[in-house]
Amino acid sequence: MVIVLHPTATQENLEEIIRILENNDCKACPTYGEFQIIIGVIGNTQQIDRDRLLNKKYVDKILSVQQPYKKANRMFHPENSLIQVGNQIIGGTQLTMIAGPCSVESEEQILDIAKKVKASGAGFLRGGAYKPRTSPYAFQGMEEEGLELLKLARKETGLPIVSELMSITKIDKFVDDVDIIQVGARNMQNFDLLKALGQTNKPILLKRGLSATFEELLMSAEYIMAGGNDNVILCERGIRTFETYTRNTLDLSAVLALKRLSHLPIIIDPSHAAGKWWMVEALSKAAIAVGADGLIIEVHNDPDNAVCDGKQSITTERFAALMEPLRLIAQIDNRNF
Amino acid sequence: MVIVLHPTATQENLEEIIRILENNDCKACPTYGEFQIIIGVIGNTQQIDRDRLLNKKYVDKILSVQQPYKKANRMFHPENSLIQVGNQIIGGTQLTMIAGPCSVESEEQILDIAKKVKASGAGFLRGGAYKPRTSPYAFQGMEEEGLELLKLARKETGLPIVSELMSITKIDKFVDDVDIIQVGARNMQNFDLLKALGQTNKPILLKRGLSATFEELLMSAEYIMAGGNDNVILCERGIRTFETYTRNTLDLSAVLALKRLSHLPIIIDPSHAAGKWWMVEALSKAAIAVGADGLIIEVHNDPDNAVCDGKQSITTERFAALMEPLRLIAQIDNRNF
Amino acid sequence: MVIVLHPTATQENLEEIIRILENNDCKACPTYGEFQIIIGVIGNTQQIDRDRLLNKKYVDKILSVQQPYKKANRMFHPENSLIQVGNQIIGGTQLTMIAGPCSVESEEQILDIAKKVKASGAGFLRGGAYKPRTSPYAFQGMEEEGLELLKLARKETGLPIVSELMSITKIDKFVDDVDIIQVGARNMQNFDLLKALGQTNKPILLKRGLSATFEELLMSAEYIMAGGNDNVILCERGIRTFETYTRNTLDLSAVLALKRLSHLPIIIDPSHAAGKWWMVEALSKAAIAVGADGLIIEVHNDPDNAVCDGKQSITTERFAALMEPLRLIAQIDNRNF
Amino acid sequence: MVIVLHPTATQENLEEIIRILENNDCKACPTYGEFQIIIGVIGNTQQIDRDRLLNKKYVDKILSVQQPYKKANRMFHPENSLIQVGNQIIGGTQLTMIAGPCSVESEEQILDIAKKVKASGAGFLRGGAYKPRTSPYAFQGMEEEGLELLKLARKETGLPIVSELMSITKIDKFVDDVDIIQVGARNMQNFDLLKALGQTNKPILLKRGLSATFEELLMSAEYIMAGGNDNVILCERGIRTFETYTRNTLDLSAVLALKRLSHLPIIIDPSHAAGKWWMVEALSKAAIAVGADGLIIEVHNDPDNAVCDGKQSITTERFAALMEPLRLIAQIDNRNF
Repeated sequence: MVIVLHPTATQENLEEIIRILENNDCKACPTYGEFQIIIGVIGNTQQIDRDRLLNKKYVDKILSVQQPYKKANRMFHPENSLIQVGNQIIGGTQLTMIAGPCSVESEEQILDIAKKVKASGAGFLRGGAYKPRTSPYAFQGMEEEGLELLKLARKETGLPIVSELMSITKIDKFVDDVDIIQVGARNMQNFDLLKALGQTNKPILLKRGLSATFEELLMSAEYIMAGGNDNVILCERGIRTFETYTRNTLDLSAVLALKRLSHLPIIIDPSHAAGKWWMVEALSKAAIAVGADGLIIEVHNDPDNAVCDGKQSITTERFAALMEPLRLIAQIDNRNF
Repeated sequence: MVIVLHPTATQENLEEIIRILENNDCKACPTYGEFQIIIGVIGNTQQIDRDRLLNKKYVDKILSVQQPYKKANRMFHPENSLIQVGNQIIGGTQLTMIAGPCSVESEEQILDIAKKVKASGAGFLRGGAYKPRTSPYAFQGMEEEGLELLKLARKETGLPIVSELMSITKIDKFVDDVDIIQVGARNMQNFDLLKALGQTNKPILLKRGLSATFEELLMSAEYIMAGGNDNVILCERGIRTFETYTRNTLDLSAVLALKRLSHLPIIIDPSHAAGKWWMVEALSKAAIAVGADGLIIEVHNDPDNAVCDGKQSITTERFAALMEPLRLIAQIDNRNF
Repeated sequence: MVIVLHPTATQENLEEIIRILENNDCKACPTYGEFQIIIGVIGNTQQIDRDRLLNKKYVDKILSVQQPYKKANRMFHPENSLIQVGNQIIGGTQLTMIAGPCSVESEEQILDIAKKVKASGAGFLRGGAYKPRTSPYAFQGMEEEGLELLKLARKETGLPIVSELMSITKIDKFVDDVDIIQVGARNMQNFDLLKALGQTNKPILLKRGLSATFEELLMSAEYIMAGGNDNVILCERGIRTFETYTRNTLDLSAVLALKRLSHLPIIIDPSHAAGKWWMVEALSKAAIAVGADGLIIEVHNDPDNAVCDGKQSITTERFAALMEPLRLIAQIDNRNF
Repeated sequence: MVIVLHPTATQENLEEIIRILENNDCKACPTYGEFQIIIGVIGNTQQIDRDRLLNKKYVDKILSVQQPYKKANRMFHPENSLIQVGNQIIGGTQLTMIAGPCSVESEEQILDIAKKVKASGAGFLRGGAYKPRTSPYAFQGMEEEGLELLKLARKETGLPIVSELMSITKIDKFVDDVDIIQVGARNMQNFDLLKALGQTNKPILLKRGLSATFEELLMSAEYIMAGGNDNVILCERGIRTFETYTRNTLDLSAVLALKRLSHLPIIIDPSHAAGKWWMVEALSKAAIAVGADGLIIEVHNDPDNAVCDGKQSITTERFAALMEPLRLIAQIDNRNF
């Protein structure tokens, strides 16, 4: 941590700040610049309350040297985290494929899709039971019934299931019912929900918020990990930009940045990113080429009549055909699907 | 609603879409363009599931004519909404002033600030008990004890209290304890929380999300109103932009836009917008000049030692001095504080 | 300047960096942190090539303490700059009002508008002769003929004229013909144009780019000032955000930030910011309330039939009526129009 | 084009708008909605001045059905454009590799790099002679001498050269000296420069602006093409987002979107996008996987001592090693380098 004092700061101000730092078991190393005093701080600076220092009128700014996250930080955990779900491992050389419809719509629909994506090589089934919709008048999901159908599909196919939790009140049910709990982009900073998930030991698929930075995403992971749950899987699903032709803008550099900053696995969601089914296959290939640990793709057996997001779902046939080029790209880096 | 068909759409496609619209009690009026067919749709188009139409490959795009919100829409409610809290009315010619610290810190602190802002003319006391913090290691608020201190301050001063609710599990307590429930920017699309608040009849101060559009803010208001609670107060608190010198960028055109689109009152929060105390007074004056229904301002009796956000809090003295120019500006439009 | 070395940096790396700094007449003050070495740098750090330091793999990051602009920096020029144009001064307690149509359309149009805005109290006439249009097929302005008509309007009314220069090839003509040369938002980083304007002594109205930060705007001002032309007037005209209801989002905190960072005057353009005529008056009032040095407003005698941007132009009648509330707000701060 | 009238529009207003449309040889097909009249417009709507229609107070909004660009539009030119430079073709199954340093620094440097990238398989040499720098105090390039050195490198290696033109005053020199003229992101809307380039027949590498949409990029291409020069190559080089860890955010969906909207080739610049050399290789692989027509990569023989942007340049050795995985990915789609 580097503290820059205001040009008008006095010797008394400097002494006060040194005292505060020492009370926090840190050491202050001041450098006297032409206009301003710069203080390098040594010690466990994460315990220092930056806000309180910034309140001082004689403090001009505080420059961070270390990242504010600890448990999610690769500096303190150099090896990749491997997250086990059933007999699959997320984050290793065997890549993860999560496929399924936006929403569970019926027993017939979810069973048919589950069987087909399994046959094509998917390792997990996704499906929304509770849906976060911008409009209160839109379809809100089959809710509890949807969860039951997902469980049925798991029983039939053996695929572990991934579904989005929207409310802290449903947390026990989700811990019982699903294999990976998804936290949606709009809830990335629902801190109470994150804290509660930290008390479980379920794998959490944490989606990046619509305009969140990498640091903010990792701080949200830190909320879960600080509670004792290390099973966090990061998910890039596109961020909001000025471009409106695509639903969001997929940021594939997120894979590289997050893998350098953190040891957590990272999965790409090309469906929500693009919002257009005809972009999903090419973006999936790019995601594997850039080094993602896996994909979560919306697949539907009848996209034309899907209850939601059909425009961004690929057919089960296209999904089957996609697996081959993905495998070829993965092999270039000695990975496989 | 206007539906644009893809250039390759066939007569069968057109007939199918007409049939779907008629099944929804709407009438289709097609126009045959040089390249594409355009369909004007008449009737209650809000009941049509746009998603399902967009799923059709022969549908190129859907252009909205009407806004997707109904209860929040000024078109169906031309007069300004007036929201009564105690003997004060929010949304009328008497402007609303909400003042107080970021966080409740102690009995002495909150009582001292409450008395001083009341003496200067504030009509409401704000204070955080539960704090949404980016870091799990930062001060999370005094929680229940904070609420008790706010109630004590209300008892001593008569000022109604405004505080932020973060979790659906605390909703009953907030309904009992506070006068206006604040929903923070990060929870603007916490749809389960909004739905639950729609079941109460408490006034809700709904903050605009960090990168939310006006329509998204009004759709979140609609979530609350759809449940039966019409007492929604909108709050602009700055949006995220590329500028990092300010914490956020205050969008004062929001006042004009939201007043045209909706009948709900709108309050400005200059403190979170700027993130710098020395900007708060000038931005407050601008907010009243542009026509806001009131302000929510962070005021502290000792900003240098505030537990959080002291950098953006003005002193009780500056707050007192600010009231006079605000009154002068309000009077130009025949309004007053 | 603070240089943070990578955790793996060696003693040799440290010595190399110290040597480089000393060769630049700067002194290095290293602090040995737990993980990384932090180097405070004393001396004229603006001469150091940051890029070359950042190239070193053992340099993790460079944190700026000083702003990169010098001539535009208030630190080295504490008093407000006053810019004289004819017998008017921009940047003082007498506020500046620039009014006129988006484009010059005809002799009759520009003379009529010029006379009317003068009668209402405007001090300058604006009018586009060369227009930056997104489409090559849109009206590109009356060009040279437009400049002649502006000169005629100046002769008739005595109002100095403001017009946008788009190309370095027209610079001599603009220096001869207009009183203030406007640089549009899209040319804010047309560095060759800025350099050429630095060789003149004309007042320059420099508009903030669509997604430019304050620092980038001031660096563009610095380009002009580095050439020897100190007559730069900054202009905030709205920035691009996710909101599409308004054309841009007016950032009134820019006035406060730029006045703190720089000594240059700052003018607000509410017309391009909002893109809607019915927002212009309220935003103008807010701009004066926040402390802007003046306004540039699009005014038309027949907005319904304007060749461009009629949707954001107010009528000459509304302009006349607007002056009174603006004067009242200005007087609160002991300023006047 | 669809025109939506304001709810208060009268029959006279409707008749006026129909008359205006008919005067433009278009036909109006009104649909009477519950609240508003919607007018579908048939005919050559690109000739209609949208601005003038929007000026009418009774016009609520205009919804576009067609894109505003014509020559760049795939609808009117279904096959991919192939752009020939020497004996290479850009836009076909043989992919394009442009490599070289950010800036030309010396004869030794540019010759060494040119020979090495040629040996590794690059088809073009890039190098900056005139540099757009945010600061007037930063290195501005070797200018004319830099161009001479590029020509020398071309003579020695046979590689055609690509360099950035910043000013309309240098256009003749660039037409004579370089093989592809680059227009930088900051000049994407320097319309006078675009018009002048439209008068040449040189291939133009047009970079997407920092916060430009696809439509804006294509409108800038249209400026060049409207003048008669069809040799436009689009280049995605990252857009500005809230993320500051990377220099910009690479938008790979741009390849898919621009290929659907337009017939022009599209090249990816991973170096400026990421701003970090260690991201360049993985992003290059992703760019080829998503279907780009080629890459423009910053390569330096001594990045540690580069005059500019060394932090984002890969070494000639890494460049050589990168070609192999790129070829493997290209082959999956039956393309090659």
